[in-house]
Amino acid sequence: MRDSETLAREVIARCQALARFSEDATGIRRTFLSPPMRDVHRAIAEWVTPLGASSRVDAVGNLRILYPGAEANAPRLLIGSHLDTVPNAGAYDGILGVVLAVALLTACEGRKYPFALEVVGFSEEEGVRFGTPFIGSRALVGSLDEELLSRRDAQGISIREAIANFGLNPADIPQTAMGDDTLGYIEFHIEQGPVLEHAGHSLGVVEAIAGQTRMEITFLGHANHAGTTPMSLRHDALAAAAEWISVVEQHAQSTNGLVATVGSIQVKPGAVNVITAQALLTLDVRHQKDEARNRAVDFFVGQAEDIAKRRRLSVRSKKLLDQQAVPLDSFLLNRVAEAVSRAGCEAYRMVSGAGHDAMILAARIPSAMVFLRTPGGISHDPAEAVEVEDVTKAIDCGFHLLDQVASSADFLSSPSRTHRA
Amino acid sequence: MRDSETLAREVIARCQALARFSEDATGIRRTFLSPPMRDVHRAIAEWVTPLGASSRVDAVGNLRILYPGAEANAPRLLIGSHLDTVPNAGAYDGILGVVLAVALLTACEGRKYPFALEVVGFSEEEGVRFGTPFIGSRALVGSLDEELLSRRDAQGISIREAIANFGLNPADIPQTAMGDDTLGYIEFHIEQGPVLEHAGHSLGVVEAIAGQTRMEITFLGHANHAGTTPMSLRHDALAAAAEWISVVEQHAQSTNGLVATVGSIQVKPGAVNVITAQALLTLDVRHQKDEARNRAVDFFVGQAEDIAKRRRLSVRSKKLLDQQAVPLDSFLLNRVAEAVSRAGCEAYRMVSGAGHDAMILAARIPSAMVFLRTPGGISHDPAEAVEVEDVTKAIDCGFHLLDQVASSADFLSSPSRTHRA
Repeated sequence: MRDSETLAREVIARCQALARFSEDATGIRRTFLSPPMRDVHRAIAEWVTPLGASSRVDAVGNLRILYPGAEANAPRLLIGSHLDTVPNAGAYDGILGVVLAVALLTACEGRKYPFALEVVGFSEEEGVRFGTPFIGSRALVGSLDEELLSRRDAQGISIREAIANFGLNPADIPQTAMGDDTLGYIEFHIEQGPVLEHAGHSLGVVEAIAGQTRMEITFLGHANHAGTTPMSLRHDALAAAAEWISVVEQHAQSTNGLVATVGSIQVKPGAVNVITAQALLTLDVRHQKDEARNRAVDFFVGQAEDIAKRRRLSVRSKKLLDQQAVPLDSFLLNRVAEAVSRAGCEAYRMVSGAGHDAMILAARIPSAMVFLRTPGGISHDPAEAVEVEDVTKAIDCGFHLLDQVASSADFLSSPSRTHRA
Repeated sequence: MRDSETLAREVIARCQALARFSEDATGIRRTFLSPPMRDVHRAIAEWVTPLGASSRVDAVGNLRILYPGAEANAPRLLIGSHLDTVPNAGAYDGILGVVLAVALLTACEGRKYPFALEVVGFSEEEGVRFGTPFIGSRALVGSLDEELLSRRDAQGISIREAIANFGLNPADIPQTAMGDDTLGYIEFHIEQGPVLEHAGHSLGVVEAIAGQTRMEITFLGHANHAGTTPMSLRHDALAAAAEWISVVEQHAQSTNGLVATVGSIQVKPGAVNVITAQALLTLDVRHQKDEARNRAVDFFVGQAEDIAKRRRLSVRSKKLLDQQAVPLDSFLLNRVAEAVSRAGCEAYRMVSGAGHDAMILAARIPSAMVFLRTPGGISHDPAEAVEVEDVTKAIDCGFHLLDQVASSADFLSSPSRTHRA
């Protein structure tokens, strides 16, 4: 058997090789059902066929590789991530989780588990082409509805048409849904943040996907002449906004697990010599606990109102998104933690601040995620990287995890969880 | 003799009548040498001819009305303001000072002073058409140079060409300069701010035009994922900018006579879910004393650097404008203060935060300004207004002022001050 480090080096080389399949001549860009997706499917299929696995592309373009279990009617464990990318992407976001799962099949060397392993390469997670993420994983949980299938890309092509144009049959979408014999889903993914690097860990055990609130806040003051209006007679919308941005930052800094971001601000009239009449800001708030997130959002809105009142301005707020936190499966989480420990790492538990396919699947089946340290926290960028050491440990972790699941008789006998949602 | 209130009502009616001469069908817009300027010239000329005054349009389009003095070789006192407007303007900014000067001629009823009175309606003060203000008053002090005359408007027409297109001769520009016999300049103008209204005064004695610094400040941080980057590991350019905006506001609030404004902010990438990498802000700082203004600017730049350093960001600053304060003439100021008192008002001394033609003329001759209360502090807006009571007091003040100047033998005998610059 090849050692994990050799496999890890192969995983990295394979990710780099697949990165060449891009819509752009320079830079990586591989959106939903774009031509280079076909090259990725073919390359991965060529790797898995000699391992005794079969592969197919389902009706929404997910690559689905089946490595059979010890028995014909064995339940199925899903493992994977997504194959699509953002524009000007790195070589690891998403696809690393698929290639790493293939490496686990390689390492099996024909050995069978009491479950079949289905490696899934989701066709769409980033939401680039249709402005809607998770098309691939939504199909597996059966939530790709008509409204969604009718959405159009910048060229006016609907998801339904894109599927047909790729040579797939939209009528087959119902058959993409996972079966009742599905045990759970495991996803390896780069962290896309600086936490593991900062804490000095190779791997992270993801406990939950943070819930997210997005808001628009508008402070309304009065435009006045910057030279003739004394400080005491101003109703400066930008000064109010600045005070509020600082309140948001300080509160998030002092609240465990909370992140809050004002990422955009637009002011009117926006002239050097005119006091700002209007400041439109966005707010992004995330936390593992919905209650904590909602409490923070209420506090921020209340503070905006207080600041506006004290300054004799008005304020409007509008909720753009209210997405609940998704806790991952505690049984699988604990198995991941043990596997991470057996791979020689501290089982560092953390929350994912970004959405992932596991968030969609967790609504139906027990799901777990393992994060890999992301150098510099850089992702969605050509500079995105992974360390050989960390990929090695991830492979070791994957191995131990499969062993643990294999020895969990209760878990194997309860695929009925599929329907817990 | 008609009483001042009747004259005041006529002044207001005349300003409203002149407001109909506009480039726009709806709203007032009368830029440098635009066709409606000709109508304004004609209307005012018709008002002054019966009063024994002569009028002409000089080579840069200034309307110049001469009401002779008691003797043929009497020195000359200038009184006026500007005839041009911003787009979507009010009916009083600038032109009120010209129409009010005409009312003073009316009130003279043929009586002569030991000086000639020259009412000047400056052709350009706002800087709208060529992006350069004070074209009219610059011609009077002889600072309209070749570079300026070559500037082009949005249609590619140079100032020189605009002058010729209006039927004037650019070769005559040198003759627009005021003569050595000029005693001084007096300007009545709406305050364009809320100070007089807030303090409950009709008139203000302007001591100085504030100096002004304009800067561009750029905070440079790092773009990161708003969900995956903990608060402690961020380098958020907008959060730094917000902290600095609050520092600027607080410092200006606690520094007597200082106004400081951040009127514009642009952030990159400016997405709801991405931490800001770059925030570009403008800063406008004004004070009556250059030393105080420069000290404030140094403090603001130092604070920006401190904030950036503490947050491990970088900051760049660039000076866009550094315009010195212009103190007005102390002799004329004191005469204005006496005249304001005789008009039954408190001689409320104040600083102009905005630039005016008096600022340009003050470089060459003793200059003074009187501000009229501006309801709601509103100007550069169709809602701009004046109160009959305040215009009445301004007319009374103007009368007393002319009397006082007439009885100031030393002042009348020293037109050599013309060359003090």
